[in-house]
Amino acid sequence: MVTAAVAGASGYAGGEILRLLLAHPDVEIGALTAGSSAGSRLGDHHPSLFSLAERPVLATNADALAGHDVVFLALPHGQSAALAAQLDADVVVIDCGADFRLERESDWQRFYDTPYAGSWAYGMPELVSKGVKRREQLRGARRVAVPGCYPTAVSLALAPLAAASLIALDDVVVVASSGVSGAGKGLKPHLLGAEVMGSMSPYGVGGGHRHTPEIAQNLRLAAGGEREVTLSFTPTLAPMPRGILATSTARLAPGTTADDVARAFAEAYADEPFVELLAAGSWPATGSVLGSNVVTLQFALDEVAGRVVVTSAVDNLTKGTAGAAVQSMNLSLGLGETTGLPLAGVSP
Amino acid sequence: MVTAAVAGASGYAGGEILRLLLAHPDVEIGALTAGSSAGSRLGDHHPSLFSLAERPVLATNADALAGHDVVFLALPHGQSAALAAQLDADVVVIDCGADFRLERESDWQRFYDTPYAGSWAYGMPELVSKGVKRREQLRGARRVAVPGCYPTAVSLALAPLAAASLIALDDVVVVASSGVSGAGKGLKPHLLGAEVMGSMSPYGVGGGHRHTPEIAQNLRLAAGGEREVTLSFTPTLAPMPRGILATSTARLAPGTTADDVARAFAEAYADEPFVELLAAGSWPATGSVLGSNVVTLQFALDEVAGRVVVTSAVDNLTKGTAGAAVQSMNLSLGLGETTGLPLAGVSP
Amino acid sequence: MVTAAVAGASGYAGGEILRLLLAHPDVEIGALTAGSSAGSRLGDHHPSLFSLAERPVLATNADALAGHDVVFLALPHGQSAALAAQLDADVVVIDCGADFRLERESDWQRFYDTPYAGSWAYGMPELVSKGVKRREQLRGARRVAVPGCYPTAVSLALAPLAAASLIALDDVVVVASSGVSGAGKGLKPHLLGAEVMGSMSPYGVGGGHRHTPEIAQNLRLAAGGEREVTLSFTPTLAPMPRGILATSTARLAPGTTADDVARAFAEAYADEPFVELLAAGSWPATGSVLGSNVVTLQFALDEVAGRVVVTSAVDNLTKGTAGAAVQSMNLSLGLGETTGLPLAGVSP
Amino acid sequence: MVTAAVAGASGYAGGEILRLLLAHPDVEIGALTAGSSAGSRLGDHHPSLFSLAERPVLATNADALAGHDVVFLALPHGQSAALAAQLDADVVVIDCGADFRLERESDWQRFYDTPYAGSWAYGMPELVSKGVKRREQLRGARRVAVPGCYPTAVSLALAPLAAASLIALDDVVVVASSGVSGAGKGLKPHLLGAEVMGSMSPYGVGGGHRHTPEIAQNLRLAAGGEREVTLSFTPTLAPMPRGILATSTARLAPGTTADDVARAFAEAYADEPFVELLAAGSWPATGSVLGSNVVTLQFALDEVAGRVVVTSAVDNLTKGTAGAAVQSMNLSLGLGETTGLPLAGVSP
Repeated sequence: MVTAAVAGASGYAGGEILRLLLAHPDVEIGALTAGSSAGSRLGDHHPSLFSLAERPVLATNADALAGHDVVFLALPHGQSAALAAQLDADVVVIDCGADFRLERESDWQRFYDTPYAGSWAYGMPELVSKGVKRREQLRGARRVAVPGCYPTAVSLALAPLAAASLIALDDVVVVASSGVSGAGKGLKPHLLGAEVMGSMSPYGVGGGHRHTPEIAQNLRLAAGGEREVTLSFTPTLAPMPRGILATSTARLAPGTTADDVARAFAEAYADEPFVELLAAGSWPATGSVLGSNVVTLQFALDEVAGRVVVTSAVDNLTKGTAGAAVQSMNLSLGLGETTGLPLAGVSP
Repeated sequence: MVTAAVAGASGYAGGEILRLLLAHPDVEIGALTAGSSAGSRLGDHHPSLFSLAERPVLATNADALAGHDVVFLALPHGQSAALAAQLDADVVVIDCGADFRLERESDWQRFYDTPYAGSWAYGMPELVSKGVKRREQLRGARRVAVPGCYPTAVSLALAPLAAASLIALDDVVVVASSGVSGAGKGLKPHLLGAEVMGSMSPYGVGGGHRHTPEIAQNLRLAAGGEREVTLSFTPTLAPMPRGILATSTARLAPGTTADDVARAFAEAYADEPFVELLAAGSWPATGSVLGSNVVTLQFALDEVAGRVVVTSAVDNLTKGTAGAAVQSMNLSLGLGETTGLPLAGVSP
Repeated sequence: MVTAAVAGASGYAGGEILRLLLAHPDVEIGALTAGSSAGSRLGDHHPSLFSLAERPVLATNADALAGHDVVFLALPHGQSAALAAQLDADVVVIDCGADFRLERESDWQRFYDTPYAGSWAYGMPELVSKGVKRREQLRGARRVAVPGCYPTAVSLALAPLAAASLIALDDVVVVASSGVSGAGKGLKPHLLGAEVMGSMSPYGVGGGHRHTPEIAQNLRLAAGGEREVTLSFTPTLAPMPRGILATSTARLAPGTTADDVARAFAEAYADEPFVELLAAGSWPATGSVLGSNVVTLQFALDEVAGRVVVTSAVDNLTKGTAGAAVQSMNLSLGLGETTGLPLAGVSP
Repeated sequence: MVTAAVAGASGYAGGEILRLLLAHPDVEIGALTAGSSAGSRLGDHHPSLFSLAERPVLATNADALAGHDVVFLALPHGQSAALAAQLDADVVVIDCGADFRLERESDWQRFYDTPYAGSWAYGMPELVSKGVKRREQLRGARRVAVPGCYPTAVSLALAPLAAASLIALDDVVVVASSGVSGAGKGLKPHLLGAEVMGSMSPYGVGGGHRHTPEIAQNLRLAAGGEREVTLSFTPTLAPMPRGILATSTARLAPGTTADDVARAFAEAYADEPFVELLAAGSWPATGSVLGSNVVTLQFALDEVAGRVVVTSAVDNLTKGTAGAAVQSMNLSLGLGETTGLPLAGVSP
């Protein structure tokens, strides 16, 4: 039995990690910590986690987190590095923040204002990176950076095509929609239910969203690491609690056929338990992956525009965050990769 | 390993049964059948059940369902009786329809126009009935009638108070809201997304809903079976995919205190794994039980009105239908009662 | 041309008043004021009111509101009385708060902790009160108390039956659902979009909601004022931006028929422009009244339970607040009662 | 007073036309017709249009539509041409279908399978086309083709930049989300409320959506008509009743600055009553334009990607269909262009 602590347990990512761990046969849930919520009971924050309702929420610090086999960090960006440095090197630390995702200091500096902390093993096992799946790097890893939710949906959609040189990397355009849990639990007027229901709106337009360099990095490495990626990424807020639908498009390399694209996807994902290449005529829907660790994919070639359009759906909190974290833990500890992870969506 | 067939696999109830069985360690999914959907693949109906996508949907008949240890029936009301009669007596048959729920022929005749088929063991293990929990009747049962979704939310809310003689049974008033999956997959204009989003409306007003006699029966039996129950039940359609929130109110017996009520609930449910008596100040929310087999309860005494108001939340498809079906199967077969049943909601 | 100021212009009620006034041919919008939002532009709060986007939000005080023909107060409960006392007696003051709704000091004291301020003409023109419609009291009134949103839906549903002695007043039970704009713009965790979408929950259970005495008062006066009303009222929060659906039920007086009930409604409302008695088989839906000043009604007799169940729908922000305010202003100033008020819903 | 008939009155577009005409001071509503719904009452289809509830729905044919000053056609694509040919040449015919939108027969043939019927004056007054606003063509026109809903949101977003030669036209990428009313009232399983709430999905991916050539035509003509437009357009279905949010992006012409873009928008739209260029920091939201005839616009330059990203929001049923129809009627008849058209959204 593995013991796991969760820092940032009062937030949405922390809550989803706990939901998954409750159903994980090999994990015992240990300390739960938070920042300003310290001193409360977990049920105040996650009324859906009945068996943990009376668990105390401790203050986040290295002492509270000590003595566990695994520590999940679900903290605001920029807070993981200092804390992780105080955790024992043998402990498996799974960071759901952005701190250790970017491999280039310059990328970090352009989007964040805290010092660059380096990069860790990247928790997207299915992603091709310089010819190798990221899975290899995760086996036995003691430090894991969980990908961002948008990068999960977008990178898995385009990486096989980048790896197979089927698309140009200089004009990738992505527009993606996220459910409002992606914005977290912060009390902001535009996140009130009355504001978001029945309304869609964009944000971070023009290249400003912090997931932009992470997506570009993934595609660059998928393609071998030599060519830079130029990406226009626009996120939008959709009136649903969870889910990301991404529309990712790139110009096709000359002569590329639909069969070439289908083959690249099949080669990359045929054996992946959490990537579903949908049957012809079926299209991803966020409702179908709700609560599951699955990403669904479907593509079409637009002959007139000379572009391939790949659409993908994930649950931003599950495969987009907490599911990837648990999947990474499984790999790190040598447990079954799919253990404890839902393979079917809760639908309708 | 137990083999299970599902008749009516293309509908919402059938899909939810399959979602739960996929995660059940002791069950292997066998034949999937349907009526007009026969000949299609399951993925056409339940795109969220990825591992079953290519499974063929057979025509519903006794031959297709033969040879399984358990058969789940998720058919339109009135269709179960004829089919069940053709299934081997040793097979566990779990009927999610109304056919075998009512113990009085007169109740059936008032609300249905097919012949009365009798009654089976009632699949609500937590319900007190003439001093005994229904659980006892379910152990080893070969025929089980799964309760209706509204009766689950309402009966568990009031039965302990009826059993303890804390409430009058001659003026019970219930208003409940259901997510639209409760109306099934029938193609009706008022169920279109554009119509239901952002809108609430009542239906079956004035005592016409078919769950009315089932609720009255449960309360009558909870109170010992001698006194008739007079019930005003109004269901409403709410703009959400799943969930039932019930507000159940009855006049208090003279001298009844909040402590009396709390004690009755504690005695009835303290050891029940799927009934959550919420802490003071917390109220049921359908979002907290989404996808789980849990019912949440909270009450308040209205001293001025002389009434107790009990509120309860369930997921109509899980604890309200498919979860109760699997829980009943577990009891019938002597498996662990909670096996394969989610104890935490998918929230937010 | 009438000039109108709005205090509390940054909230939902204030915004809806402005939306209606913008379309009112006889009104010119003057000063807009607020509390903590003073100093901002109106567009920061109501991005849908394009023509007012650059209007400055002033601090709420008597000076800012002086010099207008009409002043709308959309302030937190308890703040209107002191401000209104400083406004010229000739100015029409329309208060959307609770301060002047209750005619009994004891009712006020039981639900509020500020001093009782008295009562004003009650802005529900269609309501029968001691044999006379409230409309009569509103013509030429200089001070008007706009009803609460729940009392609008419930009182219009039951008052004609109370007035005609068709129902018992000692056991009225009401359960109503409101869209989340009813909770205002306060930044509370349970009002976040991720929390409210897909979820229903009750609040103020057991008689604690402040609209309870207002409903009881309306029914008492509808019945002539001699008999007290006993009311169980349970509000619930529904996953929609706007709208109230109320289910109001009372025991029928002996011998009362459906025709009696229909006749009472027809007599009360046949000539009312904003009350729609739906055709047989049609039921109120909040979606149908969205953005309109209309309340829809439909009833059923439950012979078994001996109760009449009346269902009603209003837009909580329009007929439930701002529409009633403008309608009252029209009556006060002798304008056409329906001027500027939408008679059709925005649907779907 | 102008008399207006509506063919296709039972659908969503027809209903929205009627909602607007009810509030139009210069129009009297005449015959209402439909196809399979003929013989019903209008209230069966549009319960929100209270004053028209008992109006009979006649069969759609030239006789029923004769004798009106204006005839609105809200019919399935391909049905307008034959009917319009039978209407008097002096009658103003406003067609909300696609039949007369496309100026090139080859465009029509690629996307539709009925014969090409020609093109009419295009009902988007604000659109620059070969240096002239479409408004000029609409004054006095007897035949008007109302634009598609997506083309409204996208064309107004990019046309001023195309006209000013600030963007390249060979690689325009658009991803847009529509509320489900855009799919109409057809009874399709994927449009059921339980399916669409909480879920987003794409459709018509890869260039197959019929609005693609209309958008390309508008941009080509905005740019002067000489250069072809290459467009990748992906529509997605969003969990809301109404609204379109479009993200439209094109590569910038060398040296183009944000000031250039802002100036182009200001020149095109500063005097347009229904186009709102949002203040810096504000972004379009479909909720803000609900029920209004307004389109909101905001842009950002992505220096890294070399693209301008323009976001726009409209209500697909109002400015996207019925509002444009009424606005066109106003121009055709010489009425005030904004008469009867809401300038503020119903929000929240």
